Amino acid sequence: MERIAIIGAGAVGLYYGARLALNGEKVSFLLRSDYDTVEADGIHLESIHGDAHLTGARIFRSPQEMGPVDLIIVAWKATSNPLFEEVIPPLCHENTQVLTLQNGLGNCERISEVVGPDRVLGGLCFVCLNRLSAGHVGHTAGGKVTIGEWQPQPDSPRASELVRRFKAANIPAELSRDLKEAQWRKLVWNIPFNGLSIAEGGVTTDKLLADSGIEAEVRAIMSDVVTAAEAIGHKIDPDVIDFEINRTRSMAAYRPSSMIDYIEGREVEFDAIWGEPLKQALQAGARVPHMESLAARIQKRIGKLQ
Amino acid sequence: MERIAIIGAGAVGLYYGARLALNGEKVSFLLRSDYDTVEADGIHLESIHGDAHLTGARIFRSPQEMGPVDLIIVAWKATSNPLFEEVIPPLCHENTQVLTLQNGLGNCERISEVVGPDRVLGGLCFVCLNRLSAGHVGHTAGGKVTIGEWQPQPDSPRASELVRRFKAANIPAELSRDLKEAQWRKLVWNIPFNGLSIAEGGVTTDKLLADSGIEAEVRAIMSDVVTAAEAIGHKIDPDVIDFEINRTRSMAAYRPSSMIDYIEGREVEFDAIWGEPLKQALQAGARVPHMESLAARIQKRIGKLQ
Repeated sequence: MERIAIIGAGAVGLYYGARLALNGEKVSFLLRSDYDTVEADGIHLESIHGDAHLTGARIFRSPQEMGPVDLIIVAWKATSNPLFEEVIPPLCHENTQVLTLQNGLGNCERISEVVGPDRVLGGLCFVCLNRLSAGHVGHTAGGKVTIGEWQPQPDSPRASELVRRFKAANIPAELSRDLKEAQWRKLVWNIPFNGLSIAEGGVTTDKLLADSGIEAEVRAIMSDVVTAAEAIGHKIDPDVIDFEINRTRSMAAYRPSSMIDYIEGREVEFDAIWGEPLKQALQAGARVPHMESLAARIQKRIGKLQ
Repeated sequence: MERIAIIGAGAVGLYYGARLALNGEKVSFLLRSDYDTVEADGIHLESIHGDAHLTGARIFRSPQEMGPVDLIIVAWKATSNPLFEEVIPPLCHENTQVLTLQNGLGNCERISEVVGPDRVLGGLCFVCLNRLSAGHVGHTAGGKVTIGEWQPQPDSPRASELVRRFKAANIPAELSRDLKEAQWRKLVWNIPFNGLSIAEGGVTTDKLLADSGIEAEVRAIMSDVVTAAEAIGHKIDPDVIDFEINRTRSMAAYRPSSMIDYIEGREVEFDAIWGEPLKQALQAGARVPHMESLAARIQKRIGKLQ
């Protein structure tokens, strides 16, 4: 049995880590503030895929204490990426792989600097999770993880094997043969909705779509993201725009993760979700005025200047 | 490899059947009106758990043509249950098992009359599916199936094995050790929301919850269902009422399956969702005035007298 380390114990890390552990995988969690609560009472999932309680979880306060594992799953916000050099090496033997479940662009590149690109995989999570309290996670919609190799290759037995292990742990999962395209496809939603939820002052998705002017802006930004992806070499069907608008209407008053970070005063993942995609779009020669103006509005709100 | 027959090729049958077939299970579909379309173009899933296209599906126009299988999955509306005696026997060898994915109460009993109770299992689907056109299914939320034995037993290797096969096919699944309790737990939602969507003249769940008087009626009916379940011997935590109200708010303008049947002029599953539960509640001596008045209002709408 392979050892797995979860680094980043917010809702995403606790949810997927606990699901894997409940299926018998040997999962270790790196915890800081929640250590005592999880030690005393385990991890509780209140999930549309079945409530569950993980007791006796393997938990550690430092990567040195945890030691080498076979797979590291990165589930922290991109704002913690400066810690990679400190946290990853103590968890590695020579073949350790790293799967990042993070949002946006630039994470695989940063991890590659530490372990080399051939050992990096990405997983995109299509899920509504929230941390209810220390050790308690609510799961209200979705759940799927799309897994692929950072370095494209015709066939990836190790990504397919991860898909199989996730599915066996009651996590819908699918293989992506083009991770970069899948990252851009996910940004079609994240860039406008996470962005406007901040730019409009901390509002939920239903309020954004209730205003026809803002809906038009959502659509214009999505169209820019599709244009950017195409300029970089990833063809995305523009029909996804109607699909994403309709899907988001069905989610009612959804709070994008960046909106929660913003209203709770935590650092927003600006570079991963808006900065890096905009930089890549402009470098590829794409004309993306709505992405540019959105990035400027967010920077003004969060007081960040590039 | 075991042979599986799907009977009832609406959204539920096509969705779960196609997922199992795409994972290599030997699935046969019994089709009538959609036969030619599926033969020409297969089954298309537009799913939050990954789009998929099943080609070369094994399809049949009659149970005689299909012949014996190892597992029959029943996915038609309870209003088709009078066809069990005609459809099930040609599909059976002496050990064929039957898993019903139907809503409400009374289905396992009817199937037991044909194959005997020891060969019956139940699966409860927590999912938003809709048939977009012949052979095309949309999957917008949820997906989990809870599987258990109709005849309670301390341990069920065959139910556990079905859970494993569903999960391998990218279907979240869990084992229920008490199927009857799980059926009542699901009715806490179906009785009020499917019911009031008809009683109020064909309205979506968001409109029901936007009216505080109707929300109070939803809560009163849910409380009756919890009372009924307890009288019959199934303890359900009353906290589920708040949970279900909150979950339903997040579903926005959801159309319960019975509302769609009602507005499209199809027969409504009255007995399975309201008639049989009410009968069992009254026989157990429970006082359930809100369930009674709801049943009367639905009967008036659909012109059905018991």
